[in-house]
Amino acid sequence: MSDDGGFFAVARSQRAHRSFTTDPVPDDDLVRMLEAATWAPSAENSQPWLFVVVRDAGRRAALDDLARRLWAGGAKHATAHRSPAHVLAEVDRATEAGFGGAPVVVVVAGDTTACHRVSLASSVFPAVQNLLLAAASLGYGTALTTLATYATDEVRSVLDLPDHVDPLAIIPVGRPARPLGPSRREPVATRSHLDGYGRPFPAG
Amino acid sequence: MSDDGGFFAVARSQRAHRSFTTDPVPDDDLVRMLEAATWAPSAENSQPWLFVVVRDAGRRAALDDLARRLWAGGAKHATAHRSPAHVLAEVDRATEAGFGGAPVVVVVAGDTTACHRVSLASSVFPAVQNLLLAAASLGYGTALTTLATYATDEVRSVLDLPDHVDPLAIIPVGRPARPLGPSRREPVATRSHLDGYGRPFPAG
Repeated sequence: MSDDGGFFAVARSQRAHRSFTTDPVPDDDLVRMLEAATWAPSAENSQPWLFVVVRDAGRRAALDDLARRLWAGGAKHATAHRSPAHVLAEVDRATEAGFGGAPVVVVVAGDTTACHRVSLASSVFPAVQNLLLAAASLGYGTALTTLATYATDEVRSVLDLPDHVDPLAIIPVGRPARPLGPSRREPVATRSHLDGYGRPFPAG
Repeated sequence: MSDDGGFFAVARSQRAHRSFTTDPVPDDDLVRMLEAATWAPSAENSQPWLFVVVRDAGRRAALDDLARRLWAGGAKHATAHRSPAHVLAEVDRATEAGFGGAPVVVVVAGDTTACHRVSLASSVFPAVQNLLLAAASLGYGTALTTLATYATDEVRSVLDLPDHVDPLAIIPVGRPARPLGPSRREPVATRSHLDGYGRPFPAG
């Protein structure tokens, strides 16, 4: 496959959306997103992912409440010392906005009978990223949230998940209420090394 | 952004490559892959990723040897009970092939001073997936491997990584020695649920 502007344009456009219209998200589009997710690699091709498409308003509200309680109850405090004030304020606003009116929330989980727990995140988050990119490619906004998943048993209770299934990500999906510009990122050179830590890449 | 065949075609084509030509991988192409990686989301936009581009043959061989030793020394045994024989044989062959002659190996790590360790995988593996898709989009083959990263201190030693940096993924990059067809995956419907576990999605 030759250079494909499509992937780069989609990846560059991906942002964390916090506000959505009430436009519906048809099953067919969700199936395309989930199918793209399953194309991601996983340890020994174990495909340990599992998706719960949450349309029910009560269950969406329960997940939303859970994230708010965790943030107010300690996560904000634990984060405050390492995050700049503007990021903290942004997460504050995001948590307050919750799923921002998204008509669908997709919970991505991992099946611990299919894959060692130690390899579960590395086998599920590539699929999560495919899901987010597929959504962007179809004109939907998403946000990758993980906070509520640390209350594993409470998420299991909301979604009737058995004990061998670990929730890993909670993703609102909807049409963005407003377009967002490109993301801000540190330059590659500040995070890259050649052969060993501390040698610049790309070289001079 | 409207429906974009580019992303779906690239994602569908992604496979784990185990055999590469000796064609060089120019810095400019690696920078494009790493830049796409940095567009991925991370907890509170902490961007905890860190890349080591390993061109040095000695260091590549050291990482390769490490994976072989771990596989022979226990990982294969630990995996045998849950993986079908054909998958086990495939991983056997893959471990034997090592990085398959790839001229470059990219190690993706996480900076634990930038992000809680508990959020490190969810903040780095979306970037890893962007890197793999960018490579595919530019016509390169890759494979996502994690086995050697469990020998954290040994990888740190090979790459001079400080203690606050955790290696998370080791990715050979090169031109594929042969084209691979599409991947085999379980259908979405076998992994998807509506509102709660056990209710089929898509319905009926």
